[in-house]
Amino acid sequence: MKIRIVVPLAIDVFNNIALDEALLFKAPDTDIEVVNLDGGYDRIDVYSNEKTITYTLPFIVDKVMEAEKEGCDGVFISWFGDPAVDASRVAVNIPVVGGFEPAVHMASLISTRWSIISPTPGTVSTFRMLARKHGLEENIASMLTVNVPLTDERGIEEKVLPLVEKAVDEDGAEAVVLGCTGFGRLASNLARQMKIKGKPITVINPSAAAIGFLESLIRSGLSQSRVTYPESLL
Amino acid sequence: MKIRIVVPLAIDVFNNIALDEALLFKAPDTDIEVVNLDGGYDRIDVYSNEKTITYTLPFIVDKVMEAEKEGCDGVFISWFGDPAVDASRVAVNIPVVGGFEPAVHMASLISTRWSIISPTPGTVSTFRMLARKHGLEENIASMLTVNVPLTDERGIEEKVLPLVEKAVDEDGAEAVVLGCTGFGRLASNLARQMKIKGKPITVINPSAAAIGFLESLIRSGLSQSRVTYPESLL
Amino acid sequence: MKIRIVVPLAIDVFNNIALDEALLFKAPDTDIEVVNLDGGYDRIDVYSNEKTITYTLPFIVDKVMEAEKEGCDGVFISWFGDPAVDASRVAVNIPVVGGFEPAVHMASLISTRWSIISPTPGTVSTFRMLARKHGLEENIASMLTVNVPLTDERGIEEKVLPLVEKAVDEDGAEAVVLGCTGFGRLASNLARQMKIKGKPITVINPSAAAIGFLESLIRSGLSQSRVTYPESLL
Amino acid sequence: MKIRIVVPLAIDVFNNIALDEALLFKAPDTDIEVVNLDGGYDRIDVYSNEKTITYTLPFIVDKVMEAEKEGCDGVFISWFGDPAVDASRVAVNIPVVGGFEPAVHMASLISTRWSIISPTPGTVSTFRMLARKHGLEENIASMLTVNVPLTDERGIEEKVLPLVEKAVDEDGAEAVVLGCTGFGRLASNLARQMKIKGKPITVINPSAAAIGFLESLIRSGLSQSRVTYPESLL
Amino acid sequence: MKIRIVVPLAIDVFNNIALDEALLFKAPDTDIEVVNLDGGYDRIDVYSNEKTITYTLPFIVDKVMEAEKEGCDGVFISWFGDPAVDASRVAVNIPVVGGFEPAVHMASLISTRWSIISPTPGTVSTFRMLARKHGLEENIASMLTVNVPLTDERGIEEKVLPLVEKAVDEDGAEAVVLGCTGFGRLASNLARQMKIKGKPITVINPSAAAIGFLESLIRSGLSQSRVTYPESLL
Amino acid sequence: MKIRIVVPLAIDVFNNIALDEALLFKAPDTDIEVVNLDGGYDRIDVYSNEKTITYTLPFIVDKVMEAEKEGCDGVFISWFGDPAVDASRVAVNIPVVGGFEPAVHMASLISTRWSIISPTPGTVSTFRMLARKHGLEENIASMLTVNVPLTDERGIEEKVLPLVEKAVDEDGAEAVVLGCTGFGRLASNLARQMKIKGKPITVINPSAAAIGFLESLIRSGLSQSRVTYPESLL
Repeated sequence: MKIRIVVPLAIDVFNNIALDEALLFKAPDTDIEVVNLDGGYDRIDVYSNEKTITYTLPFIVDKVMEAEKEGCDGVFISWFGDPAVDASRVAVNIPVVGGFEPAVHMASLISTRWSIISPTPGTVSTFRMLARKHGLEENIASMLTVNVPLTDERGIEEKVLPLVEKAVDEDGAEAVVLGCTGFGRLASNLARQMKIKGKPITVINPSAAAIGFLESLIRSGLSQSRVTYPESLL
Repeated sequence: MKIRIVVPLAIDVFNNIALDEALLFKAPDTDIEVVNLDGGYDRIDVYSNEKTITYTLPFIVDKVMEAEKEGCDGVFISWFGDPAVDASRVAVNIPVVGGFEPAVHMASLISTRWSIISPTPGTVSTFRMLARKHGLEENIASMLTVNVPLTDERGIEEKVLPLVEKAVDEDGAEAVVLGCTGFGRLASNLARQMKIKGKPITVINPSAAAIGFLESLIRSGLSQSRVTYPESLL
Repeated sequence: MKIRIVVPLAIDVFNNIALDEALLFKAPDTDIEVVNLDGGYDRIDVYSNEKTITYTLPFIVDKVMEAEKEGCDGVFISWFGDPAVDASRVAVNIPVVGGFEPAVHMASLISTRWSIISPTPGTVSTFRMLARKHGLEENIASMLTVNVPLTDERGIEEKVLPLVEKAVDEDGAEAVVLGCTGFGRLASNLARQMKIKGKPITVINPSAAAIGFLESLIRSGLSQSRVTYPESLL
Repeated sequence: MKIRIVVPLAIDVFNNIALDEALLFKAPDTDIEVVNLDGGYDRIDVYSNEKTITYTLPFIVDKVMEAEKEGCDGVFISWFGDPAVDASRVAVNIPVVGGFEPAVHMASLISTRWSIISPTPGTVSTFRMLARKHGLEENIASMLTVNVPLTDERGIEEKVLPLVEKAVDEDGAEAVVLGCTGFGRLASNLARQMKIKGKPITVINPSAAAIGFLESLIRSGLSQSRVTYPESLL
Repeated sequence: MKIRIVVPLAIDVFNNIALDEALLFKAPDTDIEVVNLDGGYDRIDVYSNEKTITYTLPFIVDKVMEAEKEGCDGVFISWFGDPAVDASRVAVNIPVVGGFEPAVHMASLISTRWSIISPTPGTVSTFRMLARKHGLEENIASMLTVNVPLTDERGIEEKVLPLVEKAVDEDGAEAVVLGCTGFGRLASNLARQMKIKGKPITVINPSAAAIGFLESLIRSGLSQSRVTYPESLL
Repeated sequence: MKIRIVVPLAIDVFNNIALDEALLFKAPDTDIEVVNLDGGYDRIDVYSNEKTITYTLPFIVDKVMEAEKEGCDGVFISWFGDPAVDASRVAVNIPVVGGFEPAVHMASLISTRWSIISPTPGTVSTFRMLARKHGLEENIASMLTVNVPLTDERGIEEKVLPLVEKAVDEDGAEAVVLGCTGFGRLASNLARQMKIKGKPITVINPSAAAIGFLESLIRSGLSQSRVTYPESLL
């Protein structure tokens, strides 16, 4: 099967990271491709608010339709806030997921309440609205933010661990969702460090959950509901 | 105060209807202006699905920002599904509303459960997701659809009344929200006919609710929360 | 249009405050009148519990019916806990609101979750039950209380600001509702001070929201649902 | 122990019915007394709406306080809509219940979802709001009404059985709550008839549930929470 | 009437405690018997997780069926997590309760939100799932754990009081449920100490609530719904 | 990777069906094994109620622990009602799923509301309680039952299709979950027939969803939360 990852930027600097990560978690018969947008932004911080994201949505839908035309079996829009996922599901017949939905459903299956740790305070209420939209708000233990530039690798790593610990110790989190596709690679290391501290906790990488859900849907011959997302005749 | 109505189409055929309706419900010191998009579609049926709507969102945000620059005090994006409302709230400081939120909050204030009657089945799950997003799903009595082309005036009028009756008789609706800014003008006539039938029911015109909410926010010096919709620095 | 404010006390010491506040927020064509009860209490602290409030309810309904008879277009029962609002809606055809419902619906429209700051701990669970009754409990970020006598003006002002800050910093509030019609006048000043601290937050004055909702309902020719609040034949 | 039943009318025509019913379900060491109000109405149909009920609330609180002064251990306000229950709980230290809360908690313990069958359509949204207030709305399967005058004994019996059957067959009810203290005596007969039809269903008499809850609270030395219902100092 | 208490262990060391406690709260015409399992464990700490509990469930159902055969009118499975309650309700016609359901319904009747204080962290998510299952999650103020061996009497008493205080002061608890049938005897003493501290709070003993509910069901001739818990033909 | 399917019966008549089905949906590098219980029942209809299921739970946990000891990477307990899933998750470190959770999370990802079609009315409230337990009740459109013996192949096929149609036409279902691992093989045929009728709908086979979730968890190195399901020390 062929899964295409759409990194919703006009630049390709994150493509290799996205590809390497997907290769770690995919099944042996899955081919992964990574593409960018034909328009939109060349800087990563635009994804911190709803206004700038909105200008990229048409380009994302274009790329999803292109993937279907070119024979892909499924598409992962690689950003945690699920940009253009609903519109893309209307536009194509192959299954489409973003980063949010697969991760929080995975978290809800293996635990009762979970926390999301994400890069900027500006996205907290967006993520809460997404959880509500999918009927999962009561499973939120807390929503925490790092508030470090996404480009500061070391800063992120140092800041996320104490938040994982706070989620477990103070907020009643039973699992942790990394709320940024750029954080995903930290998941296994964070889980290891928490185990050393005697506080074992499941940490979910949204990219791994997205690839897993797509593979499962594709193998079962399923896609998004045509009632929820009716076919566009235009 | 000056309120601008953005009709999210590239054509102006609905502008007069939107203006006339707003003039019926506005306060004496409110000036109303109606504008269209600089791009997007010239046909009304595009608003029946999430894919085509997505291509108009950037044009809507542009028009809302233009309204703020030109000194407007508030903006009503005149479509029931609240297209680009969240993004526009991030983009400007003046209050912005669509058709959905003011109507359902108004309905929830004057009743416990209400039904939405809208033009096409394709929007039902979108409206449910919107209600969830704003924490109001448990107030939904039912969601009914006419399934008549929006251009067939007479057909709409004949089909909506039986649905209002069904909502009241079978679904437990205590109020009815007309789920289309193009249906709004039917509200008072529907309420009158239901009263004649001995089944008095409040029927909410989303445009009237939208103008009312904007006037109230503007007079109170309020706007959308800067925590929910953080200012965009880009 | 003519809106009558019922201050639910037997004394008129708060009438001028209520009138002045309403004049700040009303539309130019709205006439405001303020009346008191023909019975009940002459001290303000009776409104801190459900027992004493209950003895005033019949007098409130009397005044609302009098307002309708004397040609008013709407009534605002000026106390945050919505005393006698349901009974009054049954008793008359003109729209009736209290302080709670308009404020929390306004807050829910401009934000996702909000905090209520009110005068006494004794009302916290009453307000939670009101929020539940109207289907809005999941939008509560926190409920905080000042615990200062309502007659101690300066004490109130000094104590409310830190609570607004706590609501934003610790409780995830995206807007703040002042849970007392007597606090309303602090709203704009609190918003200003929070902006100076670099933590801009929308602060809602329940009286302004109540007047705005009434004006909007009256202009639209709407009132409470006759299904939710069936006409009394006795 | 001594339990006093307050029948919230100015007449005593229902007292014997209330007493006889309580005697069927009480423990051997429980003494039951029945009293009426010192004011209010002499006709039963006033309890079909919130307006007329409101005028009786002060008289109910008076009687509850009198019961405490005269050494009663608990009070049952014998009307399904829980009139003045919250205010009475503030006013006294002994436990106070109405008809609604004990019945729906009993129903929720022995089943997952239940229907309420009550006399008039006018009370449906009141009961829904009560269920919400106590956090039990999701347990409602349906709310059905007989719409026969409460004075028409035979008419009631004939009309309730088909509604019990509808609740079970169509609405997914797993238990039935009789939503009127005047219906209670039908409970065991309805259960018997449903068993004969091969559709066994638990039918709850609100008076029996109320007496049972009071006895249990009194034996445990418990009463209403002083945090939820803080003591009135006035 | 005859109520049998099933202490779900293979040893009888807790039987006298269970009996003495029940005798404090039962009605004069209620006979109490206490039995153990024919298999399962001889140590109390096995009830701290779902795995070990599972091995005792068949023995519990056996004992409940034996109680019905031997003429008992109701059964209380004396452990807070309601082990085998659903299965037992299917297996017999007499009413069956555990420790959780009666206690949280009692708490929900006398307050709006309550906290559970239980012995081990390992049961917190089990109790949350139980609350959800019965539609009562929104009434949870907090879930606190002592983390002291159940055999350390003195340690428990010293550790529970500060948690009751925390629940009231920080978590908004309006009542407290002791989340262990072994804690029940502390209830009245905890309530007394909180009153001395000027923070009166209702503390619920799950065994007292269980006996009270059973007596009320038995006197009313009620049992678990045969729709929720359909009769087993095998 | 090696996944073991536990068919929770003492007989092996369904093992080949379970194996064949899993082979259809598994990844190429997944080995599937099917085992039975060492005790319990030799007839399939025991799974229609909670009592008989309870007697098999210890045997299921035993088999899950055996699977871990013998080097399996994950276990699928092949029955829709998730028997012993919670206990097994406590007992082992490898991921364990039943039929319910993966199917409803999959359904919630691709739609907003779904219906469950299951074999017997006796399991409806059990499934509702499971949905509540996992925070997914609001996503239920309806719960329908076939009421045909599980051994009557032809009868089942003929009865399920009209229920799928009812779910879509009347209940607002946007996807359908087959609520029985024995129904799974009908999924693709039902979807095909609904498409021919012009009502395309996604039909979910719980076994396919279970295998997919397990593969995804195993590839990500994840398992059930050790906070939700704390390790058993006994």
